[in-house]
Amino acid sequence: MKQSKLFIPTLRDVPAEAEVKSHQLLLRAGYIRQIASGVYTYLPLAKKVLHKIEAIIREELEAIGSMELLMPSLQPAELWQESGRWYSYGPDLMRLKDRHERDFALGPTHEEVITSLIRNEVKSYKRLPLSLYQIQTKFRDEKRPRFGLLRGREFIMKDAYSFHANKESLDETYKDMYRAYTNIFSRCKLDFRAVLADSGAIGGKDTQEFMVLSEIGEDTIAYSDSSDYAANIEMAEVKTVYTKPDEAEKPLEKIPTPGQRTIAQIADFLKADPEKCLKTLVLKADDEYVIVLVRGDHDVNEVKVKHLLGSETIEMADPEAIKSIMGADPGSLGPVGAPEQIRILADHAVRYVVNGICGANENDFHYVNANPERDYRVDLYGDLRNIQEGDPSPDGKGTIRFARGIEVGHIFKLGTKYSEAMHAAFLDENGREQVMLMGCYGIGVSRTLTAVCEQHNDDKGLVWPVNLAPFDVHLVPVNMKDAQQSALAESLHAELEKQFTVLMDDRNERPGVKFADSDLIGLPVRVTVGKKAAEGIVEVKIRKTGEVLEVKKEDLAETISNILAQLAS
Amino acid sequence: MKQSKLFIPTLRDVPAEAEVKSHQLLLRAGYIRQIASGVYTYLPLAKKVLHKIEAIIREELEAIGSMELLMPSLQPAELWQESGRWYSYGPDLMRLKDRHERDFALGPTHEEVITSLIRNEVKSYKRLPLSLYQIQTKFRDEKRPRFGLLRGREFIMKDAYSFHANKESLDETYKDMYRAYTNIFSRCKLDFRAVLADSGAIGGKDTQEFMVLSEIGEDTIAYSDSSDYAANIEMAEVKTVYTKPDEAEKPLEKIPTPGQRTIAQIADFLKADPEKCLKTLVLKADDEYVIVLVRGDHDVNEVKVKHLLGSETIEMADPEAIKSIMGADPGSLGPVGAPEQIRILADHAVRYVVNGICGANENDFHYVNANPERDYRVDLYGDLRNIQEGDPSPDGKGTIRFARGIEVGHIFKLGTKYSEAMHAAFLDENGREQVMLMGCYGIGVSRTLTAVCEQHNDDKGLVWPVNLAPFDVHLVPVNMKDAQQSALAESLHAELEKQFTVLMDDRNERPGVKFADSDLIGLPVRVTVGKKAAEGIVEVKIRKTGEVLEVKKEDLAETISNILAQLAS
Repeated sequence: MKQSKLFIPTLRDVPAEAEVKSHQLLLRAGYIRQIASGVYTYLPLAKKVLHKIEAIIREELEAIGSMELLMPSLQPAELWQESGRWYSYGPDLMRLKDRHERDFALGPTHEEVITSLIRNEVKSYKRLPLSLYQIQTKFRDEKRPRFGLLRGREFIMKDAYSFHANKESLDETYKDMYRAYTNIFSRCKLDFRAVLADSGAIGGKDTQEFMVLSEIGEDTIAYSDSSDYAANIEMAEVKTVYTKPDEAEKPLEKIPTPGQRTIAQIADFLKADPEKCLKTLVLKADDEYVIVLVRGDHDVNEVKVKHLLGSETIEMADPEAIKSIMGADPGSLGPVGAPEQIRILADHAVRYVVNGICGANENDFHYVNANPERDYRVDLYGDLRNIQEGDPSPDGKGTIRFARGIEVGHIFKLGTKYSEAMHAAFLDENGREQVMLMGCYGIGVSRTLTAVCEQHNDDKGLVWPVNLAPFDVHLVPVNMKDAQQSALAESLHAELEKQFTVLMDDRNERPGVKFADSDLIGLPVRVTVGKKAAEGIVEVKIRKTGEVLEVKKEDLAETISNILAQLAS
Repeated sequence: MKQSKLFIPTLRDVPAEAEVKSHQLLLRAGYIRQIASGVYTYLPLAKKVLHKIEAIIREELEAIGSMELLMPSLQPAELWQESGRWYSYGPDLMRLKDRHERDFALGPTHEEVITSLIRNEVKSYKRLPLSLYQIQTKFRDEKRPRFGLLRGREFIMKDAYSFHANKESLDETYKDMYRAYTNIFSRCKLDFRAVLADSGAIGGKDTQEFMVLSEIGEDTIAYSDSSDYAANIEMAEVKTVYTKPDEAEKPLEKIPTPGQRTIAQIADFLKADPEKCLKTLVLKADDEYVIVLVRGDHDVNEVKVKHLLGSETIEMADPEAIKSIMGADPGSLGPVGAPEQIRILADHAVRYVVNGICGANENDFHYVNANPERDYRVDLYGDLRNIQEGDPSPDGKGTIRFARGIEVGHIFKLGTKYSEAMHAAFLDENGREQVMLMGCYGIGVSRTLTAVCEQHNDDKGLVWPVNLAPFDVHLVPVNMKDAQQSALAESLHAELEKQFTVLMDDRNERPGVKFADSDLIGLPVRVTVGKKAAEGIVEVKIRKTGEVLEVKKEDLAETISNILAQLAS
C-alpha cells in the first residue's frame, strides 16, 4: 500500500487536549480524530488494528463455541422497563424518541434485548446452553469522557451472553470465557491481571475484571507480591490479625478541639497517632441510617458495609440528616452517646483501639480515652475497610501491593437477575418450568487498542506488537526522486507484499520527516532504501529494539520473516 | 460446527407480518428476528452472510484504492447545521440530546462528518485525491418500515466518500466505483442493472443507481429491450416522434359534463380516445404557480418540469390555490381562457393533439375541439411526461420496457455541495484556494442480503449462492442414535472441515424435520448420512438443482469441490 494514497494525518506537536501517552500518540500518529467530546473517528490505520483485535476475539470465542450475532443499537424502552434499568440507569443511558414519540435507548449493553430474544425462542433444556456474542458500537453518555478512547461516549465493545439450565453449565462457560479472555489479552501482548471484582447488587463473588496494569488506570488493584492473587480493592478481604496494645484503660474525658475536624488535624492537635483515632461516618443503607466506625488510618469500604447489611443500596447520609440524627456536623461525630435507635457497625480493627479519640457529637469537642464496650456500644463487627499496601494477602501468601489498572474485560455470572425480571424460562428434563441462569462477558475493543498503545510506546511513538500492527513492514525510500532508490523500493514493495503487509512511504518528503513519521506510526520493521540501493543493500530497523542491520535485497524477505517471528514469540 | 450449538430458530409457519418472500424466509430459516418496527437482530447465520458480503465489498474497494475508516454514529448538530441538512432532513433524521442538552443526530449518512474531517487535515492538492469508506450501522426513522431488512430504521451501509482537486480526478474515481460496484453485485450473484437516476437538487446526470430486478422493488426502471440502456423512469428522456393526425380543425365548443372529472370518465362520456384529452395540472415551482399540460394517456413528470424551469422545488398546488387561480376544481381545468399571468407548459405530445378535449375552468363543463395556438397559448414546450412501455429507447436502440428494482447501490458526483457549504478548500499547484470536489457512494449491505434472498429461493426455502452461503456443506445424519451413521458423520465432519465450512445437524430430530430445516436454511450442498452408512456411501444433494448423487466417502471431498466450483462459476 502506497502511503501517498493512505490517509495518515500525522502531527508534529503534542495536542493540548491529550493528557496521556496513548491519546497523544494515537492523535499524533494519525490513528484517530475527535468529532465531539468522547466521540472519535477511527482513521485507516486504527481501523486496521481494530480488525486485528476483532479477529483475535472472534477466533478465541468461536473456539469455545460462542456464536456471533448482531443486535440493534436502538432498543425499545419497554424492554428496559421490564428489567427496571430504564429507571435505574441514570443519565449515562442515551435516550431518544422516534417519529411516533416512542421511547428508545441507545444500547450501552444488551442484556434486555438478548433475554427477550432467547425467552421467545428457547423453551426447552434441550436447546441449552447457548453462548452468543457480538462486536458492536455502544453508547454511554459519560459525565467526564477522557483519555481519548479510554472513556468515550461511543465505543466498540464485544459483549457476550450465555444461557444455562443449571449452575454447573454456567460455571463451565464462565471458565471457558476466562480462558478465552486470557488468550485474547495475551495475544494482544498486554500485561494484565484477572482481578476479583464486586458483582454489584447481585451478590456472590463470581465476577472478574481483566485489568491492564497502567499508571493511567482508573481502578486500583490489590495484588499479592508472592502469588497470583489480585482483586479490585473494593473486593479484597482484609485478614490482618490485630493485637491489643499493652496499655491500661484511662478515664473517658471530653475536651475542646476548636476547628479540628479531620483525622489529620485531631491527631496533630492532640499529638496522637492516627491509629488512636476513630473515623465515624453515617451511611444510609436502603432506608436505614447506620453509624460506621473504622480506624483513623483506614478507609471505609461501602461495598463491604452493604454486603454486611445485605442492603440493595448504600450511600453517604447528607449533612442535614447527619446533623439531625447526631446533633453535630461531620468532623465532630463519634459513637459515645450516639442515639440508641441507630445501629453502630465497626471494622474489626476498632475492637483493638485502646484509649481512642472520637468526636463528642458536639461541634468542636472530642472524647479521648474512649474504649469499646466500656464507653460505647458496637452492634456489629465486620471487615469494613479497604485493604492497604502492607496488609497480608487474603490467600495467605505474601503481602499486598497496589497497582493501577485499565479494565479491558469483565466476566460476570448474572444468575437470574434478567431472566427472572423478564421471565426467560424453560422446561427441564422433568417438564418443570425453571428460570434460566445467565452469564455476561464484555471486552472493551477500542479500550483494548488504547491499552496496547499505553503499554507499547517510547518517546518517538507507538511500538506495535506484531499481532496488531496495521502493517508488518514500513518500506521507506529516502529519496523518491532518486531513480535507483525508487526502482528498488518499487520492486521490493511488489516482492514483499506477497508475504507481508507493507506500507511504502512514496511521498516526496524530507528524510527527517519520513523517519519521524515512521517511528510515530510504529510498524515492527522499517526497511530503508538509501544510498546503497545501487548495490542492492537496504537497512532494516527493528522498531522495538532500535537495532539496525544492513541486508542484501536477496536476503530481505527471510530476514524480515525471522525478525517478525522473534518479535511475536 | 455442530447445529445443536448453533442458534437457528426455524419456524414451520409463514409469519403473518412478512409480506414478501425474502422476509418470510429470513424469519422462517432463523436468520433474523424483529426487535421493533424496522429494527432487527441478525442471528448467527445472517451474521455469517453479512461477513461474506462485507469481505467482498472490502476486497473490491481496496482494489481501487479506497481506504476503510470508521466514523461515529453520534454526530454533533453543529455539523448538520453547517450543511443545512439539520433543517431540511425532516423526521427521518433521528435526533437526541446528550446529558448536557447538546443536540446530536444519529448518522443516516456521513457527508458532514467526513467533510469536517478532511477540511481540517487536507490543505494541499498534493494530498488529493482521497477515497475513504466505512461499513457501519445507520439510522433512518422511516415512516413506513417494511419488507424486513429492505426498508429498516437501523440498517448496515457501506458509504464511501471521495475528495478531488479537479473534475477529471472525480470522473476517474466515479468510474472506478462503477466498476467495483459491478464486481460486488456480480459476485453476490445478483441480477441487476445500473440505471441513470435523478441527482436531486444538485443537477447534472452523474448519478447511477444499482437496481436488483425484483417484483417487490419500490422503484420502476425503464430499460431498452435491445441495448444496456436503463434509467429510473423519472430520468428517462422521451424521444418519441409525434405526427399530427390527418384531421381538420373543428370549431371550439363548450359542453356540459356533469360529474365527469377523470380522463377515463371524460373519454368514456364523450366516446373519445384518451389521447384526445388534455390532462391539466397546476404545479408550484419554488414560488411560481404554473399550468402543465400532458396528453390524457400520459403522466406528468415533476422532475422534468422542475428541470425545465430550473426551479429548486416542485409540488402540486393545493386545492384552495387551484380554485382561486383557475376558478374551478381539479377535473374541470384546462388551458382555454386560463389566467394570463400564469405560464402554461406543455409536453411535446400536446402540440400534436387536434380537436382536443379539456376542462373549461368551470365545474362540470369541458371544451371539445380545442387546438393549440388557435384556442389556447403554450408558453413553453418540453419533455414533461414519464416514459412509457413501447416508447423508443432514448439511446436510439430498441423499445422501452419496465421492470421493478430494489436499489442496492448508488454512486453520486456531489460536486461542491458539501465542500462549499462547509468550506473544504485546498491550495492548488498555483497556490490558489479552491473548493474540493466530492463524490459519494453507498451500498445497502443488509439490503443486499435481502435482495440476494429475494432472487435466490424456491418454495422450500433459501438457495444461497456459494459465495455468500453461511456454510458450504450441510451434513445431515438421518439418525444420530444409529451408531454407524453418527460415527461416519463425525468422521466426515472432521475431514470435510479441513476444506469446507460444514454445518452438521447433530440434533435428535425426525428426518423430516432435519430435511425441511436443511432446505429452509439453503446451504449449497447437503450430504445425507443414512442407511448406506455401513457401506461407506452417502447421498449428496445439490440445493439449487435438487440433483441427488450417491457418493463413496472416499470421493466425497472431491465431489463437493467440483459441485461448489461449478455452482460458483
